[in-house]
Amino acid sequence: MAPSIHHSGGTVCEPVDVPVNKRHLDMVYSHIKYSDKPFMGIVTSKERAEDTMAMAGVVFGEEFVRDNPVLVAITNCNSPLVWDATMLDAMRVYARHNQPLILAPFALCGASTSASAVGAVAQVNAEALAGVAFTQLIRPGSPQIYGQFMVTVDMKTGAPMGGTPEAAQMMYLMGALARKYKLPWRTSGFHVGSKLNDAQAGYEANMLMHAAILSGANYIWHSAGWLEAGLTCGYSKFATDCEQLVGWYKYAGGLPFDDFKEAMAAIREVGPQGHFLGTQHTLDHFESAFFMPNIMDFNSFEQWKAEGAKDHDTRGREKARNMLADYEEPKLDEGIADGLKDLIARREEKLPDSVS
Amino acid sequence: MAPSIHHSGGTVCEPVDVPVNKRHLDMVYSHIKYSDKPFMGIVTSKERAEDTMAMAGVVFGEEFVRDNPVLVAITNCNSPLVWDATMLDAMRVYARHNQPLILAPFALCGASTSASAVGAVAQVNAEALAGVAFTQLIRPGSPQIYGQFMVTVDMKTGAPMGGTPEAAQMMYLMGALARKYKLPWRTSGFHVGSKLNDAQAGYEANMLMHAAILSGANYIWHSAGWLEAGLTCGYSKFATDCEQLVGWYKYAGGLPFDDFKEAMAAIREVGPQGHFLGTQHTLDHFESAFFMPNIMDFNSFEQWKAEGAKDHDTRGREKARNMLADYEEPKLDEGIADGLKDLIARREEKLPDSVS
Repeated sequence: MAPSIHHSGGTVCEPVDVPVNKRHLDMVYSHIKYSDKPFMGIVTSKERAEDTMAMAGVVFGEEFVRDNPVLVAITNCNSPLVWDATMLDAMRVYARHNQPLILAPFALCGASTSASAVGAVAQVNAEALAGVAFTQLIRPGSPQIYGQFMVTVDMKTGAPMGGTPEAAQMMYLMGALARKYKLPWRTSGFHVGSKLNDAQAGYEANMLMHAAILSGANYIWHSAGWLEAGLTCGYSKFATDCEQLVGWYKYAGGLPFDDFKEAMAAIREVGPQGHFLGTQHTLDHFESAFFMPNIMDFNSFEQWKAEGAKDHDTRGREKARNMLADYEEPKLDEGIADGLKDLIARREEKLPDSVS
Repeated sequence: MAPSIHHSGGTVCEPVDVPVNKRHLDMVYSHIKYSDKPFMGIVTSKERAEDTMAMAGVVFGEEFVRDNPVLVAITNCNSPLVWDATMLDAMRVYARHNQPLILAPFALCGASTSASAVGAVAQVNAEALAGVAFTQLIRPGSPQIYGQFMVTVDMKTGAPMGGTPEAAQMMYLMGALARKYKLPWRTSGFHVGSKLNDAQAGYEANMLMHAAILSGANYIWHSAGWLEAGLTCGYSKFATDCEQLVGWYKYAGGLPFDDFKEAMAAIREVGPQGHFLGTQHTLDHFESAFFMPNIMDFNSFEQWKAEGAKDHDTRGREKARNMLADYEEPKLDEGIADGLKDLIARREEKLPDSVS
């Protein structure tokens, strides 16, 4: 459905009609049932982290998940300088199972950090390293990820912003620090503050993805659909981002030089004043030479108008509808599905309904 | 009106109601009269280039403009491999006056170059260097600019595209070559294929501006308003880009470290669990620490809805209207204005109306 996305993330949907302390069961089950991509573990309490590992045990084997990474979980430092009890509990559960955690301060720069980008990086770095160090006390050598989520704050209103130049610059610093510490690191890509998939969303999204790619991030989150500083997700934005990611893979892969001799021969063949559309080199390479997005529209104004003069948001929504229509549920082994349902039923029976 | 733009460009408006061979007089006059920014010289014929220099002579002094750069002109190679007679004529006029030319192949990669990004760069490099070399035959040592305008072509339709990954990658190669040849170089920034100031425009624009900045371009054109692969210019896009450029200056300037000690002191002052909004460091730096665009909207969904739920394009158009309302015509010396009008009247009388 979205081959350019390698991970289905965490909270795809928060089922607010389900008691708070039972939601995680449905959320993890949905990841396993409806997607064949890796998923995230729940971190909102020790018990929910343990439930996640129990469910992972049903899928991958109870023995196997004690030592082998099968999921990833994110824990956020409460900037400034607080790793709270809930996060530490989750870190204990996952690190003990040798599961990778992302140790990522969630920083609203200017509010939960100083009004200085380098000051913010210094603080967030200390917070992230403290998180990594804690996991090594639980299980030395467990594989952990240095991370950050840093947005700047609109100093007039306190609202979190998305793709600002400082957010990009801070990524470069964090990337350099991650390399210094020899830690894999996570940042965010297409995350934006815009409420719509409009021009603002595009400017913001590409500002950060460009920096994420060039800062050498190993793990790029918030890579599709993000709107309103993460408070919602848009279908059109999701489809747009999935397509744009294909271009970013091309970008990150660098330019191919393997057909350079043939390309130079084509110049000699065509010579001055000609065009290259009919050369053998073009026929051999036209499908792969350049990124060709479909939601973006490069037709003439007249053609575009004849086709309804749709803006990008509209075209993205149409694409998202097609993606949903084409969705095929991956086959989950029936024994595993039954095992998960049993486990969930037992847990739901045991847990009192709770709102926190 | 647009302080982040340092040059008023060339064809701001093509007065299609004026005979083709007289338009340049109005166009150059408008640049001088309505803006106090540097402007471009006309290149569409030898006579029009000479008229441009005559008009520049009225403004800056006939003697002065024989040897001192007062404008810039762009000449495009007709890729593949043709510098046509019109361009060479213009190059002769401007180089003889020691005026800088941008020697910029206009390449539709995949059509007027091979379907290979590195093949396209090799060709465009040769074309640009041939242009630079020609100017040095006319006037050795005249200051010239290595340039490119390269977009990839949609290989299904032949339509030029805007912000593609290959266009960005080619910029990095061109920048490296410019440094090798020790030539200042020009590229394009916010140029897009989208017909609207929508999400596509944002993704495209920032893809290229990011690459333009990081590839070390000395002169970045198409930095505001560009839409539809250059066939039109949008007011909302213009206002958006002008504002975004402010952020790009911040980005290109790098992160300031001069208040780092104070920022670290603020962390010690606030400690765990607090916030930084009331610290002296924040009060001292909140206005300058982070880029704060106004057309972009980071308010809460509820606030944004209460204010009309406007998309970015709408807000940009409002900003453009305000910019136009606030426009103040720079004072042009009356003697110069009269001199220009005299010159134009004499030329218009002499020139027969022509459609080419």
